[in-house]
Amino acid sequence: MKKLINDVDDVLAESLDGFAAAHADIVSLGAERKFVQRRSLKPGKVALISGGGSGHEPLHAGFVGHGMLDAACPGQVFTSPTPDQMLAAAEAVDGGAGTLFIVKNYSGDMMNFQMAAEMLTRDNATVIVNDDVAVENSTYTTGRRGVAGTLVVEKVVGAAAERGDGLAALKALGDSVNKATASMGVALTSCTVPAAGKATFQIGADEMEMGVGIHGEPGRRRVRLGSADDIAGELVGSILKDLSMARGQEVLLFVNGFGGTPTLELYLVVTAALKVLRGSGIKAVRFLTGSYVTSLEMAGCSISVTAVDSSVLSLWDAPVHTAALRWGV
Amino acid sequence: MKKLINDVDDVLAESLDGFAAAHADIVSLGAERKFVQRRSLKPGKVALISGGGSGHEPLHAGFVGHGMLDAACPGQVFTSPTPDQMLAAAEAVDGGAGTLFIVKNYSGDMMNFQMAAEMLTRDNATVIVNDDVAVENSTYTTGRRGVAGTLVVEKVVGAAAERGDGLAALKALGDSVNKATASMGVALTSCTVPAAGKATFQIGADEMEMGVGIHGEPGRRRVRLGSADDIAGELVGSILKDLSMARGQEVLLFVNGFGGTPTLELYLVVTAALKVLRGSGIKAVRFLTGSYVTSLEMAGCSISVTAVDSSVLSLWDAPVHTAALRWGV
Repeated sequence: MKKLINDVDDVLAESLDGFAAAHADIVSLGAERKFVQRRSLKPGKVALISGGGSGHEPLHAGFVGHGMLDAACPGQVFTSPTPDQMLAAAEAVDGGAGTLFIVKNYSGDMMNFQMAAEMLTRDNATVIVNDDVAVENSTYTTGRRGVAGTLVVEKVVGAAAERGDGLAALKALGDSVNKATASMGVALTSCTVPAAGKATFQIGADEMEMGVGIHGEPGRRRVRLGSADDIAGELVGSILKDLSMARGQEVLLFVNGFGGTPTLELYLVVTAALKVLRGSGIKAVRFLTGSYVTSLEMAGCSISVTAVDSSVLSLWDAPVHTAALRWGV
Repeated sequence: MKKLINDVDDVLAESLDGFAAAHADIVSLGAERKFVQRRSLKPGKVALISGGGSGHEPLHAGFVGHGMLDAACPGQVFTSPTPDQMLAAAEAVDGGAGTLFIVKNYSGDMMNFQMAAEMLTRDNATVIVNDDVAVENSTYTTGRRGVAGTLVVEKVVGAAAERGDGLAALKALGDSVNKATASMGVALTSCTVPAAGKATFQIGADEMEMGVGIHGEPGRRRVRLGSADDIAGELVGSILKDLSMARGQEVLLFVNGFGGTPTLELYLVVTAALKVLRGSGIKAVRFLTGSYVTSLEMAGCSISVTAVDSSVLSLWDAPVHTAALRWGV
């Protein structure tokens, strides 16, 4: 295992310390590193809390700040955070207007966030993200997995929370953005969880995993490596089938690297994805390209498409100030 | 070779097309894809032009925009752009106040930028970046290599150009920031140039290349993989020896991933680097963490340190609006 680490037991703690030091103007670290919280809280605002296993950075801590999350709870690598972390975060960032949890649909996260929601004495609601169209049910999932589309939900709902929307409206908006978002990914290589010390899966030198999950879970099938155009054809094709949009629909196109993919290739995939979208009369009006929802050092990418209207667009465009996404401020 | 590409001959063109489509609000592509230029030029401003081989994305095209570069000339992967590209860029973005070239110190780039500078009929000057303290002379270099510190030079000089500084002042500022910046990197794996189709260098499963260049050039030595603390100790130690700063000096700390390094690990390296800086009484007052000056999918990182004063700090903090760096706007 080749990693820039010290002891495998200290990976998360030492990474969080670096993150908090580097972004001390935006975030602070909760006691015992249970959560990362927004430094300047806004009283009267619904608190947005997300979290999940680590290894997907900058998701979620990189999205804590003005216009996005109030707190993120980092579990160990590819392991759900505990209800204890979520409760501590909810206490710390409460603004008196309720708490909205944004949870990726994995059994462990669902169970722990649900437990936290039940123990929390104040108003709360949960948005479940399940944007991955690759497979129904999976290694850690009942139903579809929550993947890169989580970023889109967090950005749009975060902007609505910042402008003062109430808990019920935010829950409805989050559900709606989740429903308007579909994603699918492909892996060229595996990742290696530090504590495991070996590759999560084996894959041949000329193979790819089509429909892979963000923990290296199996996708639809293992096939011979295809061209970027063929890959984009299948990923975007599956997404369009799921969203079944009318011609002329405007969308956000998000090409996401899994951590080991050169930026040079991600932009090439943008070109490939645009060909497929244009062929279906779908118009990409916003773009996000980069490694935002990663699987440690896995090579490959996912494509996410969100159908947008002017209201969602203006929330996407609204100012955001986090470690990983920043504009308008 | 596992890459998200179509034909190896089309990699750069298809990637540039995706980049231009995704960032059409910030940049446009020159004829024959010779350069990427800032969409809204500012008359009366010194034009800042950089460029170099591709494969280091987001460097340089990702830094074109308000407060940074006016144009970037992309060569083929790890290959200098031609004088023809630089001249075309200089014509396209001329603001009537002269042209400043920012060039990484590699023999090919130096020769081609010098040729362009000589052919250009208007006032121009060149800032040569050579921040890599690992080795004197290298595979493609006479003298020290220009690496991640190039970003710092481009940001600081870009902000000064935006506020209206003249050509001579910008040249002096660029030289001064280059001198105040030192970098060194380590590679855990090789990268693969698409046209070559195989790894640039071979490296054992328990080895690292200490002092590697951003094209996979040899560094100081090939050694057994060390801990993050040991690595940061050597990288920051070499940097501090080069900069020889007084205790109490304020610096910008830039931890840069080479393209195949998880963000989780980059922040852990921030923690490790801070220990070394604090041990020497050096105070990191600004941070940049991410994969900004890459070597395709190489795993590893570089650390750059820039000694700053209040004047350089305010230029670093000034608004910037590019594909890869954005704040204050």
